[in-house]
Amino acid sequence: MEAVTSRPGMIRYEQGKMEEKTDLVVNEHPVTIKINGEEFATLVCTPEYIEDMAVGYLASEGVISSIEEIKDLWVQEEEGFVHASVSKWSPLHRQLYSKRYVTSCCGASRQGFVFFNDAKTAKVLDQAPVELSFDDCFRLVREMQEGAETFNRTGGVHNAALCDRNGILLSRMDIGRHNALDKIYGYCLKNDIAVDDKIIVFSGRISSEILLKVAKIGCAVILSKSAPTELALELADNLGITAVGFIRGQSCNVYTHPHRIVECRPQS
Amino acid sequence: MEAVTSRPGMIRYEQGKMEEKTDLVVNEHPVTIKINGEEFATLVCTPEYIEDMAVGYLASEGVISSIEEIKDLWVQEEEGFVHASVSKWSPLHRQLYSKRYVTSCCGASRQGFVFFNDAKTAKVLDQAPVELSFDDCFRLVREMQEGAETFNRTGGVHNAALCDRNGILLSRMDIGRHNALDKIYGYCLKNDIAVDDKIIVFSGRISSEILLKVAKIGCAVILSKSAPTELALELADNLGITAVGFIRGQSCNVYTHPHRIVECRPQS
Repeated sequence: MEAVTSRPGMIRYEQGKMEEKTDLVVNEHPVTIKINGEEFATLVCTPEYIEDMAVGYLASEGVISSIEEIKDLWVQEEEGFVHASVSKWSPLHRQLYSKRYVTSCCGASRQGFVFFNDAKTAKVLDQAPVELSFDDCFRLVREMQEGAETFNRTGGVHNAALCDRNGILLSRMDIGRHNALDKIYGYCLKNDIAVDDKIIVFSGRISSEILLKVAKIGCAVILSKSAPTELALELADNLGITAVGFIRGQSCNVYTHPHRIVECRPQS
Repeated sequence: MEAVTSRPGMIRYEQGKMEEKTDLVVNEHPVTIKINGEEFATLVCTPEYIEDMAVGYLASEGVISSIEEIKDLWVQEEEGFVHASVSKWSPLHRQLYSKRYVTSCCGASRQGFVFFNDAKTAKVLDQAPVELSFDDCFRLVREMQEGAETFNRTGGVHNAALCDRNGILLSRMDIGRHNALDKIYGYCLKNDIAVDDKIIVFSGRISSEILLKVAKIGCAVILSKSAPTELALELADNLGITAVGFIRGQSCNVYTHPHRIVECRPQS
């Protein structure tokens, strides 16, 4: 399937003139994930890397805790179904899926989780060894934007990239913010890629959902040209993630755990 | 609750200089909707107009088909719960919620639906009497952008507005794209506002989810400065909705049902 459709019959109006044109429009494709025969969730996505996305999603939602727990996976791309056979599936998981996580009011637990599955699967990354400079931040965001071909053609997708200080290792795009990150997560799991020394660059806002996806993947740095939310920053604080937003040209805002930015360390 | 938090300790880097600052960051607040005592869904939202959002969400998901079916509604704002008592709640609805809608392959039914509830609640708007000019499109988008105070302060929310040709009637913002539209829908239902002669202006992309929310509200025109997706345009085609995207300055793209734009009609 194609990520983009050529659509005739659009009326372009510009400087007082109308013209009929053919436009490139990004596709959305529904993909329903079935676990051991039971419908689990339907994702509306850009139809690329569907297997990676499904694997990332299953891990992200805590259905699997390692790639070995997937016994079989079959993608029906045109029909929009992924059939997964997993070894530890429990009806209990079905009941807890997307349920509200209620924290004890006097506990010492890390705060900020909304959903039960997030509390189960988000990793604490205090000790992750990654470091980078402000120039790395600017360069990585620029590199992602320059590589975002489908966005440039259609204006309709989000981009996410897995990076180290030297550049982009893997870049994925999707109409759904979280899908782009699930595609990266699934690829890393399938190929056993170490992530605690890596960096995520994301084209959209740093919402709590995005911050949690980054924590689930296991990356300790997220870079974005857009704004963060307060809940995302509370989670970043608590999970040990460095969140850098509003990266535009040669300026940015470091919101949490600035010690991973070399210029922010105490000068000796 | 506030929509925005003042957050100290952000490190601003600009033109080679670091400075510690306090930043305004938009809030995300989880709201769990319980129906007749049972947890139905958790929305992460900007904590404003929560009752309207809940009413809009219940109608949008087909839990209610009119405002009279809500017997009681109680919002616990700080705790993030909405308790709704509805007259026609069925366990069947729980089972179908967010389930994949499978169309018959040879039926004459309107295509493009992904979820069961969407097929049930989206309205067909072929006959909606609204019309507008290109200048109306440009002016309404400009008016919404100028009024988007929280976005301008924090860069972190989406805006939606209910309009007629003369201007904006109601404007709502939210960190979640769909929540802003549910807040408008709930307000219209509670106040018995006729919508088939109204226009929706939206700050983000026209995805299938957004197009369906507009169809559920019952508006036949959506205006956006951003891109549409192919699935959204198929739905707009089939549901009789005029979708105008890439509205920037004095230019735009009319994708579907251009007859509602006065300049696009055959000249006599």
